[in-house]
Amino acid sequence: MKFSAKQIAEVLNGKIDGNPDITVNNLSKIEEGKEGTLSFLANPKYTPYLYKTKASIVIVNSDFVPEKEITATLIKVDDAYSAFAKLLDMYNEVKLNKSGVSTQAFISESAKTGKDIYLGEFAFIGENVEIGDNVKIYPHAYIGDNVKIGDNTTIFASVKIYSDCVIGKDCTIHAGVVIGSDGFGFAPQNDKNYKKIAQIGNVVIEDLVEIGSNTTIDRATLGSTIIRKGVKLDNLIQVAHNVEIGENTVIAALTGISGSSKIGKNCMIGGQVGIAGHIEIADEVKVGAQSGITSSVKKKGSVILGSPAFDIFKSRKSIVYYRNFDSIVKRLKNLEDKF
Amino acid sequence: MKFSAKQIAEVLNGKIDGNPDITVNNLSKIEEGKEGTLSFLANPKYTPYLYKTKASIVIVNSDFVPEKEITATLIKVDDAYSAFAKLLDMYNEVKLNKSGVSTQAFISESAKTGKDIYLGEFAFIGENVEIGDNVKIYPHAYIGDNVKIGDNTTIFASVKIYSDCVIGKDCTIHAGVVIGSDGFGFAPQNDKNYKKIAQIGNVVIEDLVEIGSNTTIDRATLGSTIIRKGVKLDNLIQVAHNVEIGENTVIAALTGISGSSKIGKNCMIGGQVGIAGHIEIADEVKVGAQSGITSSVKKKGSVILGSPAFDIFKSRKSIVYYRNFDSIVKRLKNLEDKF
Amino acid sequence: MKFSAKQIAEVLNGKIDGNPDITVNNLSKIEEGKEGTLSFLANPKYTPYLYKTKASIVIVNSDFVPEKEITATLIKVDDAYSAFAKLLDMYNEVKLNKSGVSTQAFISESAKTGKDIYLGEFAFIGENVEIGDNVKIYPHAYIGDNVKIGDNTTIFASVKIYSDCVIGKDCTIHAGVVIGSDGFGFAPQNDKNYKKIAQIGNVVIEDLVEIGSNTTIDRATLGSTIIRKGVKLDNLIQVAHNVEIGENTVIAALTGISGSSKIGKNCMIGGQVGIAGHIEIADEVKVGAQSGITSSVKKKGSVILGSPAFDIFKSRKSIVYYRNFDSIVKRLKNLEDKF
Repeated sequence: MKFSAKQIAEVLNGKIDGNPDITVNNLSKIEEGKEGTLSFLANPKYTPYLYKTKASIVIVNSDFVPEKEITATLIKVDDAYSAFAKLLDMYNEVKLNKSGVSTQAFISESAKTGKDIYLGEFAFIGENVEIGDNVKIYPHAYIGDNVKIGDNTTIFASVKIYSDCVIGKDCTIHAGVVIGSDGFGFAPQNDKNYKKIAQIGNVVIEDLVEIGSNTTIDRATLGSTIIRKGVKLDNLIQVAHNVEIGENTVIAALTGISGSSKIGKNCMIGGQVGIAGHIEIADEVKVGAQSGITSSVKKKGSVILGSPAFDIFKSRKSIVYYRNFDSIVKRLKNLEDKF
Repeated sequence: MKFSAKQIAEVLNGKIDGNPDITVNNLSKIEEGKEGTLSFLANPKYTPYLYKTKASIVIVNSDFVPEKEITATLIKVDDAYSAFAKLLDMYNEVKLNKSGVSTQAFISESAKTGKDIYLGEFAFIGENVEIGDNVKIYPHAYIGDNVKIGDNTTIFASVKIYSDCVIGKDCTIHAGVVIGSDGFGFAPQNDKNYKKIAQIGNVVIEDLVEIGSNTTIDRATLGSTIIRKGVKLDNLIQVAHNVEIGENTVIAALTGISGSSKIGKNCMIGGQVGIAGHIEIADEVKVGAQSGITSSVKKKGSVILGSPAFDIFKSRKSIVYYRNFDSIVKRLKNLEDKF
Repeated sequence: MKFSAKQIAEVLNGKIDGNPDITVNNLSKIEEGKEGTLSFLANPKYTPYLYKTKASIVIVNSDFVPEKEITATLIKVDDAYSAFAKLLDMYNEVKLNKSGVSTQAFISESAKTGKDIYLGEFAFIGENVEIGDNVKIYPHAYIGDNVKIGDNTTIFASVKIYSDCVIGKDCTIHAGVVIGSDGFGFAPQNDKNYKKIAQIGNVVIEDLVEIGSNTTIDRATLGSTIIRKGVKLDNLIQVAHNVEIGENTVIAALTGISGSSKIGKNCMIGGQVGIAGHIEIADEVKVGAQSGITSSVKKKGSVILGSPAFDIFKSRKSIVYYRNFDSIVKRLKNLEDKF
């Protein structure tokens, strides 16, 4: 796909400064711009790159006044960053605009599918599955019996959704994610064996949730493991049985959340964080990377760090002392030597 | 599936107190009970919920005497918790009772399969594979050449088992698990490249093992990586080459075990624990979450915590001091100021 | 496959001491040798095992002089370790020598494939994909549109490669790996929702890279996430968008690297390490397991440990003091009591 400066300026309602017929077929960062790409300048810090970029077209703010000669064609708009983001979205929509139902997919007779869906090769759709309109299901996805998937949701390659789980609208679930595997529940027996506790609940994922690749979300023992509206989970996260994650909470990669814990809304949780079971975390809590949370965090908006985690300011002080432990012990030794 | 109070009472050998014809089609927690569900009351702490639950049927202990009016039909049994667990198991057996061999699965001519197996769509069975009776293999599973799978084992969707691995009886392997990928072994060369060391061993998984979704277990360089009878592994665990995990040991999510380490039996290992290579951990050792184990743990029954891990009581003291590092350093400063 | 001592001695240019017609069909460690296996003795520490091993053939150094009777047939070579490693490689080549294109694979008409490739059942090859010579693609692999794969690369079962990514020559990518899923980029909105930032870059993996099972590598927002020549990644590693990992760097399991960070060449990074976003790590840096790196490491060859990480020698001192925190505080208390 090639687009001319003229075409792009029309879409963005912008003004061209340069060659209106020059074409681009890709997007680039201004510091890495190559011929045939379109870039943007929003942060003044990057202005020097504008004078040497090889990008063919650069979107700039309408108040931008160049100080030197520029080889790129400029498109001037009210807000260069938003205009570029709009183009990114359009580009992505075209790239991901898969459609059609493959004859090499498997669909149970009892499954119901909406309008305009994409169903890739070797995808598996179990019994009584309900799939909304405009849903995209990539190759090798496994959708277990009785699963419901809301409109406009995208399920990438080899996602595995166990039976009875519910996925909302406008969700994006990346490759290799597992939803609804058994919770890790075993009852110790007298002979030191463990007896499996049947896990018959499900997972409910509300609207506008994004889940990163190879993340795992276990079904509830009874009831539901719940991921609320707007939650964003990064890659390789573990969500145990009966967990609930509140609206718009964002969690970074390799974090693990133990069984039955409840996380508030609008929280931000760093990477490799561990959260113990059966605790509650208030709304708007921020947790630093690699922290361990062993008890409930009751105060809304707390910012914590450490393993176990505590107030970030105290935590940072302890970090500094820990680094200088040697000199602290020497000070102690000095005092002891005096007496 | 709908069941009446009468039918359930018969199965559980219980006594009905209420409407014997009322039906249920799902199970619920007593505090979340909805019409049409069956719940149970075992822990007296939950008794208040009994008087307001909307569950249609509640299983209670035979010695339970209500203090207020109850709308639910009661089924009285000797042990309400066990009776409910029995129903959970029955429910699960029905849910997971898949059968039949899909014509859309691929089975090598040289493979041997037992009686009453389930083989889902797009499953792949390699050369000389041997599959026992009542084995369930879900869609998209990949069973490499020469793999053996014991009776009654369930392999969920998109499990990948590399060639020559051996899986015992009565195992449950969840979606996305990888068994038998190459150990991480490279020999540094003079030019700072690495030469791969061929990994020609296998993985042996004994009976009654459960493995959580997206966990990875590498094959041995030579010999076998061994997971002993009754081991339970949670999701997203890494087990490196030539590791051995002893009987009935339980390991929580996101833990990593480095090459050639040997873990005893009946151990309990928390989430996000790291275990160094070439060490041994005694039987019945307990390891707190996020701990790091850098050297062998020789004493049976040790309870350890921290990174690096040490005795949990000492470790907890250090945690408290660490949190209060600021006040400790102030005390030191006070003394210094005096002299 | 069976081989006689005579055949093996010819391949290795060795001298037989024992029965030239004895055959083996597997390899073993000398301490675990069984009848019908071939083993080796290189480290003198293992010599006692030679006298009791049940291995049928043992490769030894040509200067080895037995002190007792040995039942195994010996093959004497200049360097027993190298000779055995050579056999391992040969064995592996035979084991992994898959070939042919399955009629049950899906290949887009616009895809181009090289000579002598293996394409397993249910593999999916998208539009405009280019696959080099001798490439092996196992069952259930998903190769998105426009992906390029270099000669001699092996892609194991159920690897998922999103569109537009580039994989070099002589790479090995293990089962369940995800390459090119969206970077974790969201712009906070006024109403506490997040708006997804389109991720339209790709992932570029250079030659001779090995990637462990279930590892995830996100595509760049713009530009490329880059894994340089000779990098070795273990299992369950998270590589975020726009990261660059330098030549021959080795990273152990469960490590997470946040967005836009750049890691030098010839680094060695332990397991469960966390690396913050937008930082740089110099060449030849070594990082201990479970460390957290929160700011750039500028000095080439630094060796660091801890969360946050600092110089390993200082770090180890702090660890010792931390373990003995109780006695340090007691010493402080003693001094206080004196005055």
